[in-house]
This record gives sequence, C-alpha cells and structure tokens, in this order.
Amino acid sequence: MVGSEGLRVFPVTGIGEIKPGDGLAAIIANALAGQELWPVADDVLVVTSKIVSKAEGRFASLAEVRPGAEALALAATTGKDPRLVELILGESSRVVRTAPNVLITRHRLGLIMANAGIDQSNIGPGSEDRALLLPTDPDKAAAALSEELVGALGFAPAIIISDSFGRPWRQGVVNVAIGSCGFPSLVDRRGAPDRDGRLMQVTQIALADMVAAAAGLVTGEGDEGVPVAIVRGLPATAPIRPASALLRPADQDLFG
Amino acid sequence: MVGSEGLRVFPVTGIGEIKPGDGLAAIIANALAGQELWPVADDVLVVTSKIVSKAEGRFASLAEVRPGAEALALAATTGKDPRLVELILGESSRVVRTAPNVLITRHRLGLIMANAGIDQSNIGPGSEDRALLLPTDPDKAAAALSEELVGALGFAPAIIISDSFGRPWRQGVVNVAIGSCGFPSLVDRRGAPDRDGRLMQVTQIALADMVAAAAGLVTGEGDEGVPVAIVRGLPATAPIRPASALLRPADQDLFG
Repeated sequence: MVGSEGLRVFPVTGIGEIKPGDGLAAIIANALAGQELWPVADDVLVVTSKIVSKAEGRFASLAEVRPGAEALALAATTGKDPRLVELILGESSRVVRTAPNVLITRHRLGLIMANAGIDQSNIGPGSEDRALLLPTDPDKAAAALSEELVGALGFAPAIIISDSFGRPWRQGVVNVAIGSCGFPSLVDRRGAPDRDGRLMQVTQIALADMVAAAAGLVTGEGDEGVPVAIVRGLPATAPIRPASALLRPADQDLFG
Repeated sequence: MVGSEGLRVFPVTGIGEIKPGDGLAAIIANALAGQELWPVADDVLVVTSKIVSKAEGRFASLAEVRPGAEALALAATTGKDPRLVELILGESSRVVRTAPNVLITRHRLGLIMANAGIDQSNIGPGSEDRALLLPTDPDKAAAALSEELVGALGFAPAIIISDSFGRPWRQGVVNVAIGSCGFPSLVDRRGAPDRDGRLMQVTQIALADMVAAAAGLVTGEGDEGVPVAIVRGLPATAPIRPASALLRPADQDLFG
C-alpha cells in the first residue's frame, strides 16, 4: 500500500539524442546526477522503448526495403507505404486486422499492436527514410540496463520499458510495459479476500502497465524529449514477474 | 509539460463506507481537510466509480432478479449466475464475446467491458446477494461533484471517475476514465510537429486514462479502502473533453 505522502513521478531530463551503440546506463546515470535525483530502493525507472531501440541500433532504411507480394497487397488495403508494411510483416507472426490506415499484427514478441510498434516520429534528423523497430528483447534489455546501473546507483533498480499502445475500443494511446526487470509486472490476487471477506472478483492487476501510464504523463509521446521517468513510493509487495507475463496467451485470445 | 518537480499522486484517506444518498462532495472535502490536503488549481481529483455508484444507490439484489431466456442461455455458456447475467444484459446494448467465465458486452454508455462493470467485491457487509452497477452517467456525475466541491475548495476541480478494465490481449486490469469534468480526457496532437519537424505519428493521447492508471496505483482495486486520489503537477494545456470522448465510435470498431 502506498504511504500517505503518495507517489511521485519525476521526469529525468538532459538525456540527448540517443545513437546506436550508446551506453544507456551511463547516460541515464549522468542525467540523474545532473539533476541531483538519486534513486532509492523501490524506485522504478521507466524508460521509453524508443531510446532502447535507438541504443540497440534498431533503425531500418525504407530505401533498402523490397516489399514482397503480401506487403504490396496489404499496402493497397491500408494505404500504407509498402516498404513500411514489409518491415511490419518482418517483425510480426501474423496479421490480426487491416483497415484504411490501420495494420494490426501480432508482433514476434507476442504483443498485439498497430504497425508492429515501428516508429517514424522523433527518430532523429534526416529521418524521412528511416524507421525504428522495437527493441529485440525488452525484458532482457531491462535486465541488462538494471545490472549496468548497479555501479552508479549501488543497487540494481527495477526497470520498466514502456511503449504507447492504441486500444480496440478506446481512442488515444496509453503507455504500457513491454519489458521489465525486478518488478511485479502482473500482480495476482486470486484468492485474496475483499474488505467484506468475500473472494476478490478482480484477480490480476497489470501493475507495470499502470506504472508505465503514470510515467507516460511525464515522458509524453512527442516533443517533450523526456525519455525516462522515476516512479517513487510504490512498495514492492508482490513476486517479481517480467512484462512478458502481461501478454494474454494466444489460446485465451477472443479477439484475434 | 510537467515541471522538474514532477507529478504527485496523493491517496485521500479516511473515506468510510459510502451509502446510498451520501453526499460525496462533503465526504471528500472532509477527508481532504482531515489530512490537511488542500487541492490547488490543475489538481485532478480521481474518484473510483465504486463510491459514485454506492452514493447513487446503484445496488441490485440478486434475489429479486428473474433471469429471462437469453440470460439463462448465456449463463449456461459462461458458467455465471443467471441472475447476474440478467443484470448485465439489462445494462448492455449487445453481447460482444462469451467464453467460460467471460461475458463481454457493450454497456449502454458505450463502454465495451466485462460484466457491464457490475461489481460484487467490496460493496459492503452482507453483500452475498448484492451487486453494484456502474454510475448512471459518469460524465454528469463528475460535473455535479466538481460543482458541489466549489464551496469547500473555492474552485471547481477537474474530476475523473475511474474503473478497472481488462484488455483483450493483455493480462490484468488497469484503471481507465469512465467519466470526467474539466479535464482534457483525449488530447489531439494531429498536425503537431515532432522534434525533427515531421508530423506526429501518434495523434491522440488518452490522457484521462493515463491519469486514472496513475491514481489506480494509490487507490488500488481491493482491500485498500482508498477510493479517491489527487494527481498534482499536470498542467492543463489542451481543450477540455469529457471521458466519453475516449469511446471509439462503433463504426470504427474492428473487434466487435
């Protein structure tokens, strides 16, 4: 339970444009020191997937993409650039829905999302031809970043890697967790009693998604240039589970 | 943009069990005063739908429900109590999906959700027979609550009424906004340039849903007994839009 002083969400500022090969841990540690923000135990460091992808060099050049037959057909249906569609298909295990300007697929990571998370905004100057893919393995990237931060922070912080998602029945995007380390991403309350002694009706809480959304209020999506936030005040009271635990198993998908 | 001191999310404690006819504004104002928490301009008061429903007296008694033929059939499919299914159908315009232990409908408010938001946890002692329906009109309830708080606070605060929702492809629930007043629930960024001068790819931000999720970290879902939170530090920079703006129009639903 959160204490009476509540939660805080701090923007981590002063992180410049990230380039392939950049060491995110050193850059983030530097930014934290620059703003005299010292992470403490139970803090969660929320990092937008965009800078993780950039550091991993997950750029693709549209000019080098040769769209295949499926990409050309889907480009006609959706009105999207066939080269972008080819990149989306390359990142996906199957197509879930298409409509004008909409291409929803199952990403190879298991995420069902628009455009396989491929991004063309805020990916650096001269980006007309470029696209940015999701990190290769966000849970692994979170674990690596946490470990690399031990030197600067004195402990391995909980990390969430966030990305913005649309929803089938609601307008606008919200940030969710696509990777995590050291955090109870999904909290299981099955069998816990409510205040009246009944068994709880809601059984699982997507805690990492709620933390990602809270952080999204300070990192934003666009021109803010704040790719990292610290969420403070959330006591760790549940078993650690990776963000991949948030994926509904395919055999329970009623909307595929 | 959020300032360097970041966001704060305060739990509002000391709100007891809410009964039908209770005046929420006075109870919330009292709780705020009791903890010496003084709302300021740009604060958002996030109130869980459960206490709004309780104050509205939206209780139903299962013993008084006579399930009809459709409810009996859906109860057989889902394994749910036929009387509960009858209540769900009474709140819904159509059934979206069924599966064992799953009944997803379009609520009369336009929300696509499990069980029409009908709640059987934490609805008070002796609740074996009772169920709690969603507030009658959450945007209107938010507006009324805001107006009723003017006397105590000296201004009409932004209000979000939140509820917890499952998602088709992700495990666990997150809090979203089902009602709001005085808040830019959906922020439109179409046409805004990104940092590199390109047009933004993500065009709409579900700001009220992200605030509801942030508040959900302190209000929780179950035995916490904290039904209200204050989110502080989010500057109002977009036109005010009600939570109903977050509903995707039915003609754009690819998953109905």
